[in-house]
Amino acid sequence: MNMEQVWIGGEWRGARASSSFVAKNPATTLDLSGEYPVSTWTDCDAALDAAVDAAHQLQKASGEQLAAFLEGYAHAAESNAEEIIAMANAETGLPVTPRLRTVELPRMTTQLRQAAAAAREGSWQQVVIDTKNNIRSHFAAIGPVVIFGPNNFPFAFNGVSGGDFAAAIASGCPVIAKAHPLHPGTSRLLARCAETALRDSGLPAATVQMLYNVANEDGLRLVSDPRIAASSFTGSRSAGLRLKAAADSVGNLMYLEMSSLNPIVLLPGAVSQRGESLVAELADSCLAASGQFCTSPNLLLAVAGETTERLAAGLAETLAARPSGTIFSETGLQDLHRSVQWLVDSGACVATGAGFAEGEGWRYKNTLLRVSASDFLASSDSLQREAFGNATMLVTATDIAQLAEVIKSLEGNLTGSIYSSFSDSDDVYLSVASALRSKVGRLMNDKMPTGVALSPAMNHGGPFPSTSHPGFTAVGIPRSLLRFGALHCYDAVREDRLPPALRDKASIAAMWRTIDGNCVQG
Amino acid sequence: MNMEQVWIGGEWRGARASSSFVAKNPATTLDLSGEYPVSTWTDCDAALDAAVDAAHQLQKASGEQLAAFLEGYAHAAESNAEEIIAMANAETGLPVTPRLRTVELPRMTTQLRQAAAAAREGSWQQVVIDTKNNIRSHFAAIGPVVIFGPNNFPFAFNGVSGGDFAAAIASGCPVIAKAHPLHPGTSRLLARCAETALRDSGLPAATVQMLYNVANEDGLRLVSDPRIAASSFTGSRSAGLRLKAAADSVGNLMYLEMSSLNPIVLLPGAVSQRGESLVAELADSCLAASGQFCTSPNLLLAVAGETTERLAAGLAETLAARPSGTIFSETGLQDLHRSVQWLVDSGACVATGAGFAEGEGWRYKNTLLRVSASDFLASSDSLQREAFGNATMLVTATDIAQLAEVIKSLEGNLTGSIYSSFSDSDDVYLSVASALRSKVGRLMNDKMPTGVALSPAMNHGGPFPSTSHPGFTAVGIPRSLLRFGALHCYDAVREDRLPPALRDKASIAAMWRTIDGNCVQG
Repeated sequence: MNMEQVWIGGEWRGARASSSFVAKNPATTLDLSGEYPVSTWTDCDAALDAAVDAAHQLQKASGEQLAAFLEGYAHAAESNAEEIIAMANAETGLPVTPRLRTVELPRMTTQLRQAAAAAREGSWQQVVIDTKNNIRSHFAAIGPVVIFGPNNFPFAFNGVSGGDFAAAIASGCPVIAKAHPLHPGTSRLLARCAETALRDSGLPAATVQMLYNVANEDGLRLVSDPRIAASSFTGSRSAGLRLKAAADSVGNLMYLEMSSLNPIVLLPGAVSQRGESLVAELADSCLAASGQFCTSPNLLLAVAGETTERLAAGLAETLAARPSGTIFSETGLQDLHRSVQWLVDSGACVATGAGFAEGEGWRYKNTLLRVSASDFLASSDSLQREAFGNATMLVTATDIAQLAEVIKSLEGNLTGSIYSSFSDSDDVYLSVASALRSKVGRLMNDKMPTGVALSPAMNHGGPFPSTSHPGFTAVGIPRSLLRFGALHCYDAVREDRLPPALRDKASIAAMWRTIDGNCVQG
Repeated sequence: MNMEQVWIGGEWRGARASSSFVAKNPATTLDLSGEYPVSTWTDCDAALDAAVDAAHQLQKASGEQLAAFLEGYAHAAESNAEEIIAMANAETGLPVTPRLRTVELPRMTTQLRQAAAAAREGSWQQVVIDTKNNIRSHFAAIGPVVIFGPNNFPFAFNGVSGGDFAAAIASGCPVIAKAHPLHPGTSRLLARCAETALRDSGLPAATVQMLYNVANEDGLRLVSDPRIAASSFTGSRSAGLRLKAAADSVGNLMYLEMSSLNPIVLLPGAVSQRGESLVAELADSCLAASGQFCTSPNLLLAVAGETTERLAAGLAETLAARPSGTIFSETGLQDLHRSVQWLVDSGACVATGAGFAEGEGWRYKNTLLRVSASDFLASSDSLQREAFGNATMLVTATDIAQLAEVIKSLEGNLTGSIYSSFSDSDDVYLSVASALRSKVGRLMNDKMPTGVALSPAMNHGGPFPSTSHPGFTAVGIPRSLLRFGALHCYDAVREDRLPPALRDKASIAAMWRTIDGNCVQG
């Protein structure tokens, strides 16, 4: 078997590898074809040097050129969709329909095109011009970026094709993608599409580079290398915190999207009024992709009582009746079980599931745990451990005040939802919402968190430890580009030496700029 | 002597102090009256609890209320200006005129009023509304903030009155100010003005709190306490990095403004054309406040040659002829001398100065060091040590290419200036500017960096280690508020539950919002 090549400095070339790995099909647990290298530091070092050169050349690239590349990439991926989808299906076990073909690939290409539009239009730069003092500033490319994609979205969050990738490229930064080792073949096919588009764009050859895998210590070395300006990582808390510590220690930026329980507050009126439909909504959301979403609801909060008991029983029954979904890897399956056991050891009771499921592939029983709010408050830290997968936990409080106490004990989360009805008074809503607001990035009403719309108003971010900075979002173009922007100010710089976006006359008619306090277009 | 009281939870009260300190007059080295406490953790803990309560109450405060407080504060400070100025003059040795009365106090009150206007007008929140998806987001108060002010601006960067303070309050965050121990009396007088305004405003009593000093370990504990959302620090690199490590380790935000050499590139044409006026400009900028500015030029870069030699000789002569300025403290004086010695030990030669000056007070000889670019490149790390005070270093390169190499070897800086004339070709300018651009926050042409205009387009920030994040600025309202904002998204939240700024109809007529991709006012 020939080892697959890495993509460095514009060339596909043999890796300087320390070892190799294969991908497995989670639905069968069988090995897939293809041997992929674990790169040594030699590969990383070469990619870093090439990225520095590319970053320098990219200073001269126009938004139009970046846009053309991103659009060409989207088009190339669509042209090769069936091959890419088949590979992703084999590597992740995610269904072709309704997921990979109908939802995730279109999400990926939409993101690439939205990023293209943002690069072309330029408003993301937040140009501010003070004509009286002749001081001008905007956000510009921060420099070389390393992106670590997660296991759970082989297209839309892939380091070589996803939202972080699109944002970094659109802001003018070269990207070194570290593919996720659970879907190397998908990443390879996507990178080949990127290569085609890159060749047509006239951008530097090392604008995009990809390694399949590196040793953990080389990952830490990558994000803390002085040639890197910023890195982004979506994945587990333990890995994220190690990367953060490495980057922080040298002042490199590290954007993380880590664990999140995504609490759902079910106010009494909502439970009484529409318990049955809530059961169905909750089951759908908790089991989407077997619960392997960053925004999967891992924590349900309700006030104890008869209707809540009915909802709990209904949810347990529904979860038990639904097919147990597939977990991406054996490691993921073991981690899920360990986390469920941890929660049980910390005081949660099993309402259903909490064990390995039968059938082909890596499967876990759909799981509902339960705990009282007083027990939760007594072991709040332990009971906030994320069980990544098809497991959720219902916390029942004696009253709204105790429910608010539970919320106040929570760490930072990406999302928080509040279900209410007209019988839940405004006061009740407000006491819960004001406690929840500072704990989450996105607050919802009567809505499950697993849908993350590609909207400029979206926030897919939140307070630590859900991310590393609550002022940035990973989804929502153009705002997501700002993670990869440095604020560049020009003070008394001559007009012809200014970047085109900062000159008196706008270079792009559609661009919004703030000039002397007024927001003007063109 | 009675120990001064700390301001915690709306009360001036006796500190739980571990020890006490007095301020000294740098111009005489004599003790000033007033004994100030070094608070123990008990005081910090009480302030943190009060700040959490205040942050919760501040959720309901309007921009108008915040603005009224900030304006009231500015007014109160003006009403007590002479007492405050006299105290600051005694504690810092900075001249009353042209500095404290005519420049810095007006700068402080202008900042407070600009922050008030930003809070009232609301555009800083960057509201984005997607009406089709009913998703809305904006920046809102991040939570309790700790501010450590520096020694060098007793008004405009004071933790209880300066730019960080104004920005944090305007964004709706309660502030715990850690006064700088070199000007406790000034901080006390300012805090008393804040108190007057706060009482009139109806804001929570713990919106502003102040401690005079804490042990280093309690400073680290403060910024890493879970009750704190963000901290800001302006000061030395060693202290800043310790605070950053503490905050980073628990995921708290830490905004730093640390060392910066503020390189000035003197292209050959500029040196030939106006060497004499450059000497005067350089001397003025390097000696402003005895070089104790964050933006003081510590590094001058030129191409070797006869005209550069003339400029160097002229600068040495001018520096030697000017009075040696006063350094804020004995520690600062010793640090300055140690740093100059370090630079000399690392290969720099003394053109003038480099020793303690005679006369009353803590004084250092105005100092010019020189080093060749090749020597600089050989010891680039060592020779980038900041000598905070009236010392600067001229690096001479053999040609423009070597000069660009020196720039590429630099760490991140707040500012970079390029002086040129029409005989310096565009190519020469561009080769220097493109190297310098990614190293600095603010790029200037033919201008010294020591003036930092209070402009919305200003960037008083830059790449690490000049700050901890190149996307944020400490000067320039409203952008400086974003350091203290968390991105809050509302997804399908009912209209009457939305913050006023996010409702369909704007609550404030002057506020700029982005609605469905268009920037609209009102």
